[in-house]
Amino acid sequence: MTAERSAGLDYPAVFPHLGGLDLPKMTKTDEVDWSNVDAVFCCLPHGTTQEIISGLPGEMPVVDLSADFRLRDVNVYEEWYGAPHTAPKLQKKAVYGLTEINRDNIQGARLVANPGCYPTSIQLPLVPLLEGGLISPEDIIIDAKSGVSGAGRGNKQAFLYTEVAEGLHSYGVTRHRHMPEIEQGLSDAIDAEVRVSFTPHLMPMSRGMQSTMYVKLSGSIKVEDLRESLKLRFEHERFVRVRAVHVCK
Amino acid sequence: MTAERSAGLDYPAVFPHLGGLDLPKMTKTDEVDWSNVDAVFCCLPHGTTQEIISGLPGEMPVVDLSADFRLRDVNVYEEWYGAPHTAPKLQKKAVYGLTEINRDNIQGARLVANPGCYPTSIQLPLVPLLEGGLISPEDIIIDAKSGVSGAGRGNKQAFLYTEVAEGLHSYGVTRHRHMPEIEQGLSDAIDAEVRVSFTPHLMPMSRGMQSTMYVKLSGSIKVEDLRESLKLRFEHERFVRVRAVHVCK
Amino acid sequence: MTAERSAGLDYPAVFPHLGGLDLPKMTKTDEVDWSNVDAVFCCLPHGTTQEIISGLPGEMPVVDLSADFRLRDVNVYEEWYGAPHTAPKLQKKAVYGLTEINRDNIQGARLVANPGCYPTSIQLPLVPLLEGGLISPEDIIIDAKSGVSGAGRGNKQAFLYTEVAEGLHSYGVTRHRHMPEIEQGLSDAIDAEVRVSFTPHLMPMSRGMQSTMYVKLSGSIKVEDLRESLKLRFEHERFVRVRAVHVCK
Amino acid sequence: MTAERSAGLDYPAVFPHLGGLDLPKMTKTDEVDWSNVDAVFCCLPHGTTQEIISGLPGEMPVVDLSADFRLRDVNVYEEWYGAPHTAPKLQKKAVYGLTEINRDNIQGARLVANPGCYPTSIQLPLVPLLEGGLISPEDIIIDAKSGVSGAGRGNKQAFLYTEVAEGLHSYGVTRHRHMPEIEQGLSDAIDAEVRVSFTPHLMPMSRGMQSTMYVKLSGSIKVEDLRESLKLRFEHERFVRVRAVHVCK
Repeated sequence: MTAERSAGLDYPAVFPHLGGLDLPKMTKTDEVDWSNVDAVFCCLPHGTTQEIISGLPGEMPVVDLSADFRLRDVNVYEEWYGAPHTAPKLQKKAVYGLTEINRDNIQGARLVANPGCYPTSIQLPLVPLLEGGLISPEDIIIDAKSGVSGAGRGNKQAFLYTEVAEGLHSYGVTRHRHMPEIEQGLSDAIDAEVRVSFTPHLMPMSRGMQSTMYVKLSGSIKVEDLRESLKLRFEHERFVRVRAVHVCK
Repeated sequence: MTAERSAGLDYPAVFPHLGGLDLPKMTKTDEVDWSNVDAVFCCLPHGTTQEIISGLPGEMPVVDLSADFRLRDVNVYEEWYGAPHTAPKLQKKAVYGLTEINRDNIQGARLVANPGCYPTSIQLPLVPLLEGGLISPEDIIIDAKSGVSGAGRGNKQAFLYTEVAEGLHSYGVTRHRHMPEIEQGLSDAIDAEVRVSFTPHLMPMSRGMQSTMYVKLSGSIKVEDLRESLKLRFEHERFVRVRAVHVCK
Repeated sequence: MTAERSAGLDYPAVFPHLGGLDLPKMTKTDEVDWSNVDAVFCCLPHGTTQEIISGLPGEMPVVDLSADFRLRDVNVYEEWYGAPHTAPKLQKKAVYGLTEINRDNIQGARLVANPGCYPTSIQLPLVPLLEGGLISPEDIIIDAKSGVSGAGRGNKQAFLYTEVAEGLHSYGVTRHRHMPEIEQGLSDAIDAEVRVSFTPHLMPMSRGMQSTMYVKLSGSIKVEDLRESLKLRFEHERFVRVRAVHVCK
Repeated sequence: MTAERSAGLDYPAVFPHLGGLDLPKMTKTDEVDWSNVDAVFCCLPHGTTQEIISGLPGEMPVVDLSADFRLRDVNVYEEWYGAPHTAPKLQKKAVYGLTEINRDNIQGARLVANPGCYPTSIQLPLVPLLEGGLISPEDIIIDAKSGVSGAGRGNKQAFLYTEVAEGLHSYGVTRHRHMPEIEQGLSDAIDAEVRVSFTPHLMPMSRGMQSTMYVKLSGSIKVEDLRESLKLRFEHERFVRVRAVHVCK
């Protein structure tokens, strides 16, 4: 368990609900003895991550939860994240970690780039539908709603209780950093460029996310065909459920 | 102040926050002495309203907050509300009460049909943009988010705290009753039939509403043109503010 | 899985978040084949429970989550729950199920009366402190705060989102039904009658409970002694943690 | 409208819901032309306030919302706020601004020290009851529950949405800074020292406060006597309502 600001503290001092587990004290990253470590989950801000992972023992398996290795094209990374990628060679070895779509490549990968929250909620349904030709790649509109925890635990005014409760906020309109990741995944699905309209909203809830997606059906495809197709695709996936929408009467 | 279930009670017994006002006890509707009444605000469930208003003194000004007189075409009413309209003559005299759009007709009207919450949030921006030809009437997509109070104070499971908190629900997909009202208003704006895709969501908040609307710009129109047009249209309207979207950094 | 109103439904139709489990359809209680059942968890309203459990095969182990078998004295039950106890013989065999206090008796019991939520939060700290003579049994004041889910999933106005959010309510002042259960447990601890002042509050949160308890220390006892005593008592209990109070700076 | 960090901004840029008012831009305090100002409401952090108010024109009426002038005894101020009072002469002229208790002195005062939130909720009921001898000044226990806005708009982790929602926190136990203010007010009521047990709790709500107070009745006094006494005392007060507790059935 590493930390910078909280190094030296017990883990429950930071997350009280984990108080019952027998966890080691938190250590600074550069004081870790890597010889005892089997694998690393890296949950640092983008930018930082490239450097840290570059400094790890070369064969250490890593699952990176930051945005640093999600975008194949380091130029796209630089354009959206505002700084050049400092580990372009490592980027080439990274495997995009959306398990239900990319399971074969993930097995055995050294560096797994864990997908963003919005891109996960969007690619899971749209990739299979695009691959199957059931929907048009044109005019895809995504209206996404996220809980607050996705923004991390930083002390920002926008995430204070009094700012968030009893209201909602559209943000990052046309320029949220998850947009190129979404477009990369959807483009891969049909091997042609897909562009989307993506509008995220911050919701008065801690966890969870819903993406409402508006798509055009191909030819004679019906809504029922989409549902059947998704049910078939995900029926053996433990973490995905395909349901008709909940209806408040 | 009329009520059926709560007749005979003090108003603060029903809404404690109004405890400081000197209000009369609540009375059953059929026990009211209308000769002392200047105007009626009618806040009853749809269906009921037609009957009650029909029974009021003929010249009594009425603002009706139900859905009963919003739809000009009583056949459309029957189709969406599941019962024939019982006061079609009264319907013909009703004036649609969206003040910023219909002020001239509202002044002096005997029966004002107060617009629905979703239709208000949608028509205020879209009617002027359609009238001005700034946006296409095709492919309008509306993703709306509402607080819970819009559903009234009925005891339904879907509106319990534990069902609503920390989550959100799409509902009434493709068949919410506000849809024909929205389409009526937008069609009026260009004197041609407009159809929309409308998806409401129930949010974990008591009050408030946001409609995120996705439209196609006409010809050489730019986003800035929309904003300027709306600012101009509403600059003297006390209850409408045109703002660039709030951005969480 | 039994149910009355929802009999015949899949479990996820009632609790969508359990959709991924492979659960049987719900059955009416009187259609259950008990020969395949190893043990029963009974989660019915008080009153109903006595009858249902009386009708189960005599050796079937039962954990009852209702209030029906928590009070040893059936007269006290009748006084607080407003109806005579219909299974007084079964009551005599019931074991009060507060594991940390009563573990030895619970092992091997046929009928376990699961404690109420408030009584659990109150007895866990106070029983050991009373047993050890660290606090006075006089003037115990309990100010308890509960989430909404404790009230069940019934459609009551008081539990609507709009009633609960952004406020709190004291309720059941001096006459909440958990009071005799609390007093029974505390009296057992010192083998003398203990009376408490107990005021519950409904909070704007779904789950969780906090009981703030005001007690007088015995003789030379200090606050640190209470904490040490509780730490010692619960150090091997998996579900209890003793912590200094969280401080917002 | 003064501000330091936000000087130069429009007010609605800071509080969007005030967007419809025609307010001047915010100015730094030391750039204000006081000759145009009739009165000052001072809403600065404690400490700062003493200095600012000392620098205002001598006859300018001030309502100070900070804690700086609430405590008559500047030694008590220093003990609880951790720094010597820098304007002790001004302190002597300050009038404690709890209108319902101190109206006569407030009228015509130059400097009004607006009471704290907790002290207001506690003194309003307890001062009249102590004055009237209806309750004992011994063993007063106050369990107070506050919304988050009372903590201001500072970016602290403890006030993030994800920290506050779905939970509650006791804090400042035995050492909350409102305690000497409460004790000052209650002691004044009976002209003898009163000490209280005061435990505040942070609640998952933006606004509002409830103080549940546990007191011992004097001699033959009954609960009904308290209510009648308070009703009488506050019947002409516009902002105080005396009600039997709300009961969830």
